[in-house]
Amino acid sequence: KAGTRLAPYSGVPTFLTAPYLQVDNDNPDFGDLQVAMIGVPMDLGVTNRPGSRFGPRALRTIERIGPYNHVLDCAPVQELRVADIGDVPFRSRYRLELSHEDIERRIGQVVDAGVVPLSVGGDHSITHPILKAVGKKRPVGMIHIDAHCDTGGAYDLTKFHHGGPFRNAVLDGVLDPTRVIQIGIRGSAEYLWEFSYESGMTVIHAEEISGMGIPAVIEKAKKIVGDGPTYLSFDIDSLDPAFAPGTGTPEVGGLTTREVLEIVRGLKGLNLVGGDVVEVAPQYDSTTNTAHAGAQVLFEILSLMLFSPFVTGKDA
Amino acid sequence: KAGTRLAPYSGVPTFLTAPYLQVDNDNPDFGDLQVAMIGVPMDLGVTNRPGSRFGPRALRTIERIGPYNHVLDCAPVQELRVADIGDVPFRSRYRLELSHEDIERRIGQVVDAGVVPLSVGGDHSITHPILKAVGKKRPVGMIHIDAHCDTGGAYDLTKFHHGGPFRNAVLDGVLDPTRVIQIGIRGSAEYLWEFSYESGMTVIHAEEISGMGIPAVIEKAKKIVGDGPTYLSFDIDSLDPAFAPGTGTPEVGGLTTREVLEIVRGLKGLNLVGGDVVEVAPQYDSTTNTAHAGAQVLFEILSLMLFSPFVTGKDA
Amino acid sequence: KAGTRLAPYSGVPTFLTAPYLQVDNDNPDFGDLQVAMIGVPMDLGVTNRPGSRFGPRALRTIERIGPYNHVLDCAPVQELRVADIGDVPFRSRYRLELSHEDIERRIGQVVDAGVVPLSVGGDHSITHPILKAVGKKRPVGMIHIDAHCDTGGAYDLTKFHHGGPFRNAVLDGVLDPTRVIQIGIRGSAEYLWEFSYESGMTVIHAEEISGMGIPAVIEKAKKIVGDGPTYLSFDIDSLDPAFAPGTGTPEVGGLTTREVLEIVRGLKGLNLVGGDVVEVAPQYDSTTNTAHAGAQVLFEILSLMLFSPFVTGKDA
Amino acid sequence: KAGTRLAPYSGVPTFLTAPYLQVDNDNPDFGDLQVAMIGVPMDLGVTNRPGSRFGPRALRTIERIGPYNHVLDCAPVQELRVADIGDVPFRSRYRLELSHEDIERRIGQVVDAGVVPLSVGGDHSITHPILKAVGKKRPVGMIHIDAHCDTGGAYDLTKFHHGGPFRNAVLDGVLDPTRVIQIGIRGSAEYLWEFSYESGMTVIHAEEISGMGIPAVIEKAKKIVGDGPTYLSFDIDSLDPAFAPGTGTPEVGGLTTREVLEIVRGLKGLNLVGGDVVEVAPQYDSTTNTAHAGAQVLFEILSLMLFSPFVTGKDA
Amino acid sequence: KAGTRLAPYSGVPTFLTAPYLQVDNDNPDFGDLQVAMIGVPMDLGVTNRPGSRFGPRALRTIERIGPYNHVLDCAPVQELRVADIGDVPFRSRYRLELSHEDIERRIGQVVDAGVVPLSVGGDHSITHPILKAVGKKRPVGMIHIDAHCDTGGAYDLTKFHHGGPFRNAVLDGVLDPTRVIQIGIRGSAEYLWEFSYESGMTVIHAEEISGMGIPAVIEKAKKIVGDGPTYLSFDIDSLDPAFAPGTGTPEVGGLTTREVLEIVRGLKGLNLVGGDVVEVAPQYDSTTNTAHAGAQVLFEILSLMLFSPFVTGKDA
Amino acid sequence: KAGTRLAPYSGVPTFLTAPYLQVDNDNPDFGDLQVAMIGVPMDLGVTNRPGSRFGPRALRTIERIGPYNHVLDCAPVQELRVADIGDVPFRSRYRLELSHEDIERRIGQVVDAGVVPLSVGGDHSITHPILKAVGKKRPVGMIHIDAHCDTGGAYDLTKFHHGGPFRNAVLDGVLDPTRVIQIGIRGSAEYLWEFSYESGMTVIHAEEISGMGIPAVIEKAKKIVGDGPTYLSFDIDSLDPAFAPGTGTPEVGGLTTREVLEIVRGLKGLNLVGGDVVEVAPQYDSTTNTAHAGAQVLFEILSLMLFSPFVTGKDA
Repeated sequence: KAGTRLAPYSGVPTFLTAPYLQVDNDNPDFGDLQVAMIGVPMDLGVTNRPGSRFGPRALRTIERIGPYNHVLDCAPVQELRVADIGDVPFRSRYRLELSHEDIERRIGQVVDAGVVPLSVGGDHSITHPILKAVGKKRPVGMIHIDAHCDTGGAYDLTKFHHGGPFRNAVLDGVLDPTRVIQIGIRGSAEYLWEFSYESGMTVIHAEEISGMGIPAVIEKAKKIVGDGPTYLSFDIDSLDPAFAPGTGTPEVGGLTTREVLEIVRGLKGLNLVGGDVVEVAPQYDSTTNTAHAGAQVLFEILSLMLFSPFVTGKDA
Repeated sequence: KAGTRLAPYSGVPTFLTAPYLQVDNDNPDFGDLQVAMIGVPMDLGVTNRPGSRFGPRALRTIERIGPYNHVLDCAPVQELRVADIGDVPFRSRYRLELSHEDIERRIGQVVDAGVVPLSVGGDHSITHPILKAVGKKRPVGMIHIDAHCDTGGAYDLTKFHHGGPFRNAVLDGVLDPTRVIQIGIRGSAEYLWEFSYESGMTVIHAEEISGMGIPAVIEKAKKIVGDGPTYLSFDIDSLDPAFAPGTGTPEVGGLTTREVLEIVRGLKGLNLVGGDVVEVAPQYDSTTNTAHAGAQVLFEILSLMLFSPFVTGKDA
Repeated sequence: KAGTRLAPYSGVPTFLTAPYLQVDNDNPDFGDLQVAMIGVPMDLGVTNRPGSRFGPRALRTIERIGPYNHVLDCAPVQELRVADIGDVPFRSRYRLELSHEDIERRIGQVVDAGVVPLSVGGDHSITHPILKAVGKKRPVGMIHIDAHCDTGGAYDLTKFHHGGPFRNAVLDGVLDPTRVIQIGIRGSAEYLWEFSYESGMTVIHAEEISGMGIPAVIEKAKKIVGDGPTYLSFDIDSLDPAFAPGTGTPEVGGLTTREVLEIVRGLKGLNLVGGDVVEVAPQYDSTTNTAHAGAQVLFEILSLMLFSPFVTGKDA
Repeated sequence: KAGTRLAPYSGVPTFLTAPYLQVDNDNPDFGDLQVAMIGVPMDLGVTNRPGSRFGPRALRTIERIGPYNHVLDCAPVQELRVADIGDVPFRSRYRLELSHEDIERRIGQVVDAGVVPLSVGGDHSITHPILKAVGKKRPVGMIHIDAHCDTGGAYDLTKFHHGGPFRNAVLDGVLDPTRVIQIGIRGSAEYLWEFSYESGMTVIHAEEISGMGIPAVIEKAKKIVGDGPTYLSFDIDSLDPAFAPGTGTPEVGGLTTREVLEIVRGLKGLNLVGGDVVEVAPQYDSTTNTAHAGAQVLFEILSLMLFSPFVTGKDA
Repeated sequence: KAGTRLAPYSGVPTFLTAPYLQVDNDNPDFGDLQVAMIGVPMDLGVTNRPGSRFGPRALRTIERIGPYNHVLDCAPVQELRVADIGDVPFRSRYRLELSHEDIERRIGQVVDAGVVPLSVGGDHSITHPILKAVGKKRPVGMIHIDAHCDTGGAYDLTKFHHGGPFRNAVLDGVLDPTRVIQIGIRGSAEYLWEFSYESGMTVIHAEEISGMGIPAVIEKAKKIVGDGPTYLSFDIDSLDPAFAPGTGTPEVGGLTTREVLEIVRGLKGLNLVGGDVVEVAPQYDSTTNTAHAGAQVLFEILSLMLFSPFVTGKDA
Repeated sequence: KAGTRLAPYSGVPTFLTAPYLQVDNDNPDFGDLQVAMIGVPMDLGVTNRPGSRFGPRALRTIERIGPYNHVLDCAPVQELRVADIGDVPFRSRYRLELSHEDIERRIGQVVDAGVVPLSVGGDHSITHPILKAVGKKRPVGMIHIDAHCDTGGAYDLTKFHHGGPFRNAVLDGVLDPTRVIQIGIRGSAEYLWEFSYESGMTVIHAEEISGMGIPAVIEKAKKIVGDGPTYLSFDIDSLDPAFAPGTGTPEVGGLTTREVLEIVRGLKGLNLVGGDVVEVAPQYDSTTNTAHAGAQVLFEILSLMLFSPFVTGKDA
């Protein structure tokens, strides 16, 4: 009666070992999905090391995440109607702005179908077109865990690089800066991020974390976003490089995985309307620790979806 | 008219980017497949370093193999009806002999459906149950490219370890030793392989290769197996560790990839009834070169299937 | 007068550079040893990544651990009569349950000789037969530092996998669950570990550690085990993968080495009757940090032996 | 009199430890240089793995190449007036076509000053703008050592990717296809390279090399390019991945370093007007072997410059 | 108007991307420099793993450190007159003591020119000759962040190994032990460091850090050194190996990067007269995390120089 | 009757799994040994990357070399009286010349006892003192397989570096240059090796090997050394870095393992009086291929000893 369990290393790999659902690009049918996990293998927006185009593949091949979330007390892949729907189809692997259009179109299909998108990047520039789809009807708030504010302006002839998605999203009216909190910020580019402060975002720097304590960070985050529609964007470089070496713009002095898990789990009950895990670049990840941490946070965000009124409310 | 190509790093990874076909374990329906690629993630038979249970996953995640085979002038995934049918289901990850039963049963389903099995191990012990399925009706010949003869007897209380599958297959009457050639043999265990010689197999040692030249090796191989039904078993440790470090029992002084490709491609027209690529252990493969070489040889074997009377004859 | 010190990289490597003592398998003579360090290179019980059969070799080749333990104020290799007695001899590298018999027999010899066993795994399933030897006369208590409770039941046709040794030990009457504390527990398999709670073990999850603080953890541990005979089992995956990537079932969100050292050192004076360090899999340990941490904890446990009444009392 | 030698690991690293000469972007003054080594850190043209933007940095940090070339009997850094002039300045790291303009402009300055450019990529798309500068006055011939013909057409909305530079160069009239030889060609994209054959290029596939022998390859190469102005383009992926894992589109079955060195050295006396080493991606180069091989070939090409009438003739 | 930024991976690499200033060995002219960053590629003093001779090269090739220091609110490379002046020239790579003479001579030139030296090792033995130059006129105090006290005596026929520089410096009268604080101390060699205590240094062990808290550590450090001339020596092995695996004598249980950054930044306003970052051995640094952390601390120390009366006072 | 074999990963590791024999430093008793394998962990003579002090440890921990040598038809560890006698004891890890004295003394003990020394370095400078012991009574000939002639003169204040041992040995009268052949020579330092030619050594460059063929190399080698007493020195950097990345002064364009094995095995019957394997630096050996190749060559040399009149003749 002991039965047999599927070995974690067997089979065609999907995000969190969720079912694989192929969805047509032109006539998409998402069935009754509540959450769609989707890969966004695009890294044309990076300022330094490329490689996160291999991020979705890296997260799919991590074994042994789930099924049960002890802290949040759920088994999200089993309790939600969720699938890995493959990757955003791109018209070109050479065009940053065009790729953003492709992302916006595909995530728009997901959103229009009433499905919540949970994306795996790719570089952080992808969150701009995602937010354009998610926040199309009304601006959303955001929990943003990252080493960088990503609210910089144009340079090198584009504003669509991975250092500026949230400035763009605010200026496009799809992100409400007063409902944005940025956690883990550090590094040598603070002078580029005045927009965060000017637009009314709340910034918690990495160097403040030890002093504040994680419970205070969570409390602050909940207060900022309230119960409105909220997006959760997790950049793996929020973690210290000791925990996540596999990324393009690492910054020493970052968060630990224990801190990140505590923060994310502390957001139980927020009204999440989408989320992402970005910037995993497996070329720099000799231990696969980075992809492992990314997959675990993906699992935690998916778990939060079970407690989001937006996700489960439509079932009621 | 230039069009768009799928980026090699996108999507849910399958063997050679072939279509993924889920086939029920108890009521298998293989449709009109000609060739089924199947993973066999089992490494309980190793004598030294374990890890090849991760071999199927490693080969699936290699990008950019195919579509076109210049030397053999074909595009096998497009020209054959072929799919990745996932992995052999195992009742237990702890039982060597029982796993062999599971393999024999699953490959038996493939064979019974008139489909040619192309397997990815796993350790080399898996080829014994595979041959039991493939050679059930009549013994087959074999091209065996390997550092080791794998015709050793029992020790440590079992004869089913990865050092003995071909002795077992001969004794089970499913492998015709007079139609077996073993190429690339070397290392420190020759004294265990008298069975190769006693049973009538032909052995070409690695140290003979430079002197013979590859064309002579091919000629010899073709002569030995003739036009009868033939299995092709490729152990990645036939390659020198410089080319394939990611394996459990490496032996220095081995073949180069150029030699292996020349040999395999030289077998065009053989009457192949099945094949495998085994012993890729990605834990020892810091560059992914080993999985890459394994996937390339998988592609070459699949290409050979197009020219095998057994495979394509039934269409005629 | 400055003298010469042995360079850390010289000589045939042994655990903690202790003397190497060869002990016959059938007529063992341990001389006047107080503690025997012994390798247990067996990983047939793993659920996911194999490789810890190379754990003993990995720990032996770490240089520069010891001689002096500043916090515990001792030089254990010098102050105890201790040796590396090599590895448990196995009748087969293919038989999980039989390997457990071999372990029980060899550790039984150690125990029967009045020597305290300090083992290096190998996967965690080895602790079941070790406890059968150590707890043969009376059940022992246990400090268990791990990411997993390892109190799961049978599946895949065996109950002897590395997810269940402590359930087995309790049911065999060699481990007293009311004197067991499990520290660092996390991950996605909590639903398998009801036995921990039902049998009366105390569980401290990783997510509780920051809030409790390490001194409270130590206090709790001491209170649970009291001054009865106690075993200390250290699974390297209790550490966060940033500190110990080289293991088979890593779980993000774990302990730091500083926390682990503080906990272990805080146990000074416990009545230890044996200990182990398990689950180091060097294939996944590109920096050797994992083996290094394992060897350091081995050194700390050996240091604790100096203060264990059981170990030193018999000299009195 | 024994003297002191500079340790290979000391100082600010430059290509081949050549002098560093800063040259203004707008008013370039190259002094009396004969050869300018220049980095081209741009990888926006890749089809698969990015990373060669770090190629120049990787080659600069390789130590111990030179000073003396035994086979060609020269010490090129000492005998030529040569410098590392830093990298091509780019207006944007996000624009493929614009980067090509920047490359053409900078190499144009070099060429206009009568200096021979020796470039280090970057991906192979950079050779198109380089050839536009080098072949501006008259089309040049080319020795092209590569796994791929790189004569493919447009797709994904651009023809400027790294799979097509030589088609572009021919169509732009700067490369004479009848004086082009492509050596080492292999892989799965042959069907994209009809242009090589149609335009009159000579192609030597990797699978032909063993049979032909290197001396015949050299003879053929010399015959094809004759004594006209000739460019030498070396793509590191011509080497087998065992020799050069650190690249974006590896192809098994390639050349050995010994073969490549024999070929390059065999070209002594050709009328070289420029050269490059491209596609070193250090993210995939865990041993630094790839950058090492690239730096060695850079040294060999620089050595050839000493024997090129074009380079040294103007001194006469 | 957005402008162009230099890509972090471009150009000849220097420390913190500072200007490269070549300074003659015999007639040095440092111009109006305030701070000279200098490499000291010498590791003849190691007790265990060599390799830090490659430390300067490793730190130069780290990209993306700076320009702006958010916490200390400065852009030190822009606000100070600072350059990378290359490496100390050595007469022999085989002579430990002679190398120390070469270091003392070169740093002496820097100091004599009124420039503050900021050195990158190399093993920690280099700090002895550096201190002889820096403290020539009056003994200095020191903030010493390290896993080891490095106040051991002679053995293996020399006292100039990397385990003893601070004993030597005190005995040479160039270091005032009562103004020395050693932070992060741990490991198995405490018995060698009585000199720290006997001479009056203050030692904070790693195991005390969690209990004290970083603010108390900073307060203590400031109190010990006061406002006298102070040197800051940072040994990368103060960090836990999870954060800095690339070093020769790693010790588990160390500091995190967040703690180190907090400590270093907390020293703002100290009267710094020099500093160093030592013991980065890139051979053991598969992720480059160690060099990255080292470069970041180098940046922090340089930032502190802006607030040191000694550095900026002479401008006033 | 199948029996049990010792798993290759078990036990305290020794060279080729030979018995470990501890031999006193001052009153050595080698019993009836014929061959003593001995580690020489000293790398103070390197010109570039240190690390080969860890070479003996790296070779000891390689598993699965032997027992049987198929080509030479022997099981040398079983058929010879051979042991691993540990490492040369050094008075200081900081003194190059003194270390050479220690080596000469210890190898002298071996030689004086009528035992043949088979050493594992360490850098190649160790072969000078070894030859002083081995050639004390009469100069010996030598088969020298290496990328470098190692006949350079003094620089950096010493002639005892690893670039000059054979010049030193000839000048000391312990090596007969007319009976020396150097095979595999290449790289950029040829101008330093005039001594090879002037003294009458025979040099076969790597670039000659393909043209000559290995059988001609063997024939030449045998002719040069004849049947006089001969030493065999194998520098791992003779292999191409693809086969042996883990070394301090790699040179691309080298030998393959198959070529090296063919050469070494071709020397069967030479009158060997000693041998060594040097320059394995495991820090640069991410796959352990280098140590593996080194251990295999050690095994081959040991096999040759069985056929050396000097070794076995004294038994007759």
